[in-house]
Amino acid sequence: MPEDRTEQPHIVTCTAPVNIAVIKYWGKRNEDLILPINSSLSVTLHQDQLKTTTTVATSRSFQEDRIWLNGKEEDITHPRLQSCLREIRRLARKRRNDGDSGVDSASLSHKVHICSVNNFPTAAGLASSAAGFACLVYSLARVFGVEGELSGIARQGSGSACRSMYGGFVQWIMGNKEDGKDSLAQQVEPETHWPELRILVLVASAERKPVGSTSGMQTSVKTSCLLKHRAESVVPGRMVEMTEAIRKKDFAAFAELTMKDSNQFHATCLDTCPPIFYLNHVSQQIISLVHRYNKHYGETRVAYTFDAGPNAVIFTLQQHVPEFVHMVQYFFPPETNGADFIKGLPVNCASLSEELKQGIGLEPMPKGINYIISTKAGPGPRVVEDPTQHLLLSDGFPKKTM
Amino acid sequence: MPEDRTEQPHIVTCTAPVNIAVIKYWGKRNEDLILPINSSLSVTLHQDQLKTTTTVATSRSFQEDRIWLNGKEEDITHPRLQSCLREIRRLARKRRNDGDSGVDSASLSHKVHICSVNNFPTAAGLASSAAGFACLVYSLARVFGVEGELSGIARQGSGSACRSMYGGFVQWIMGNKEDGKDSLAQQVEPETHWPELRILVLVASAERKPVGSTSGMQTSVKTSCLLKHRAESVVPGRMVEMTEAIRKKDFAAFAELTMKDSNQFHATCLDTCPPIFYLNHVSQQIISLVHRYNKHYGETRVAYTFDAGPNAVIFTLQQHVPEFVHMVQYFFPPETNGADFIKGLPVNCASLSEELKQGIGLEPMPKGINYIISTKAGPGPRVVEDPTQHLLLSDGFPKKTM
Repeated sequence: MPEDRTEQPHIVTCTAPVNIAVIKYWGKRNEDLILPINSSLSVTLHQDQLKTTTTVATSRSFQEDRIWLNGKEEDITHPRLQSCLREIRRLARKRRNDGDSGVDSASLSHKVHICSVNNFPTAAGLASSAAGFACLVYSLARVFGVEGELSGIARQGSGSACRSMYGGFVQWIMGNKEDGKDSLAQQVEPETHWPELRILVLVASAERKPVGSTSGMQTSVKTSCLLKHRAESVVPGRMVEMTEAIRKKDFAAFAELTMKDSNQFHATCLDTCPPIFYLNHVSQQIISLVHRYNKHYGETRVAYTFDAGPNAVIFTLQQHVPEFVHMVQYFFPPETNGADFIKGLPVNCASLSEELKQGIGLEPMPKGINYIISTKAGPGPRVVEDPTQHLLLSDGFPKKTM
Repeated sequence: MPEDRTEQPHIVTCTAPVNIAVIKYWGKRNEDLILPINSSLSVTLHQDQLKTTTTVATSRSFQEDRIWLNGKEEDITHPRLQSCLREIRRLARKRRNDGDSGVDSASLSHKVHICSVNNFPTAAGLASSAAGFACLVYSLARVFGVEGELSGIARQGSGSACRSMYGGFVQWIMGNKEDGKDSLAQQVEPETHWPELRILVLVASAERKPVGSTSGMQTSVKTSCLLKHRAESVVPGRMVEMTEAIRKKDFAAFAELTMKDSNQFHATCLDTCPPIFYLNHVSQQIISLVHRYNKHYGETRVAYTFDAGPNAVIFTLQQHVPEFVHMVQYFFPPETNGADFIKGLPVNCASLSEELKQGIGLEPMPKGINYIISTKAGPGPRVVEDPTQHLLLSDGFPKKTM
């Protein structure tokens, strides 16, 4: 390596996806290592619609580790960021010591600059920490030349981040070792497995910031006896059932279990003391709408799931998307004329029959939903080869526009 | 008995109270006999504020059994009414055959006229079936001259009605016999036991009629695995704890368990498929208010509980009533100037400190609560001795004004 290149930062840019759990993770058995009280299972959303992009640079000229998130420098000493940095460097050293030629030995002593952005507004209330930590760990691994299993490190940034390390349908196996070495994510099926499956994110207009998931799940673990029962006696069977439904592409089974598990998660939040409410009246209306829609057709065509916030994530099959989207637009009339109401994958026009509208029998709720993001299952983290996409300039600092 | 009196109806009037469960009943193991999947415990509310009045008349001149509820004739063939009539008559026959001189042998073959009214608006959404069936069974027993244990019959009218057969603090022991003979109510402590305890019914303005409790609990039993766990593994311990808290008049323990059990009941409703929501945004706001109020003072001064509807029932001690009521009035400003906002037991004036208002930190929610009924624990069913209070005239038919 020529001398004049050593001062030049080594720069890598990667992207990582958001995931949405269909068997929910709620509660840790170890707060530091982020070990869950039950396994969980998610669908990775397509990065064309929702992704985090992270650039990592290392250089002997950097004075300290630094991070910029969505245009603002943040505190790098945050324990979870430190966990990821420490674990990646430890792994790199271990591999170098094991004689792995891929590891960039020089950079091991260098400081890093990290810059990360989401292609979706933070205000949308979409849990961005999973994509964020997945992208951070994936990028750091690339810059230090580390390969192989990384979900155990991403997990230490944010539990659900481990599931964003893979595309398609992903389980996070809770493991049972004290040190968490067996608490890892694993792909159940790739994103190509079920091409007809579609995902709609219904971004609800929230009035207030809900209880954060970290403190929420702590309180639940401490106070909810239903959560303990769920984790020990309900989820293990559901993991098997859900895996089976996905393998068989059995939409009705997948949808029903998804809804039941979302509701059970929110039930354990309500069993928490003081109780935690993530579902607001808009969420309740969406739940009614979905059940009435399915009942109208006498089959389960649509499922909802809600994380620690009021946004709904809807699963359905491609053929039902146009009608369902237009039904949502009818029952939640948007503020504007609806031009920007549907984002992401194009949705064909559809007309709603009077029979359907009357069959649903709900009062329209204006402005309850801000917009819909139409997407599908997608791949795991990727390296961005195009250097013009780097978020850090060749001097290793963010572009001025940020 | 002179001949001229036999055509005159034999008329009895009784009153019975509403009760509010602090350990909730939700789910039957036998629909016909109304046998619950868990024991429950309630406080009987004072009849000065909330009661049902029922007049029962028997006469050899009556052609058929008939019933008038709140001024309107209803269908006497309703299976639950029939259960109560059948069981009381069976008991009367059994006692007569056993040689009990109190039983009115003549009336045993007579038809009955029943007339019943509540002293609170049905629209208030207060479960009136408990008071109604308790009053019916108590009155029928009196008219047929039956004494002794009657809660097992009231239970067959409406499960929670068995608890309205006693005053004060009452448990409904689930029993385990197939025929339900051991599924009975029992007084834990009389109404005089805890004179400082006060009860406030916060009548919320509901937008829509919620799912009825009969069908709701059927769906929960069928679909909620958390309900099964609650009934089998959580409630037995809570019955012991609650009984102990009441015996000791330990308000904090009583209050905390009351809130936890209300939340767990609603959690099992949410774990039902399709989920059942009884708590609306007003209920959620009341829950927040109570937790923030208790936190502000660093002690549990107030507890809430919610049945299958949005109304809150608040427990507190006498000394905290004025401040808490005025706080409710501040955070839920009534439509009118508040003259009729507080009904029932008089509530002294109180001023709210700015510190308290700011400590609570909630946005006021106008018109969320229609009014408050201020009451306390009260006695069980009573006979009304004053014949001018009868709801049936001496001919056995309702007064014209009804």
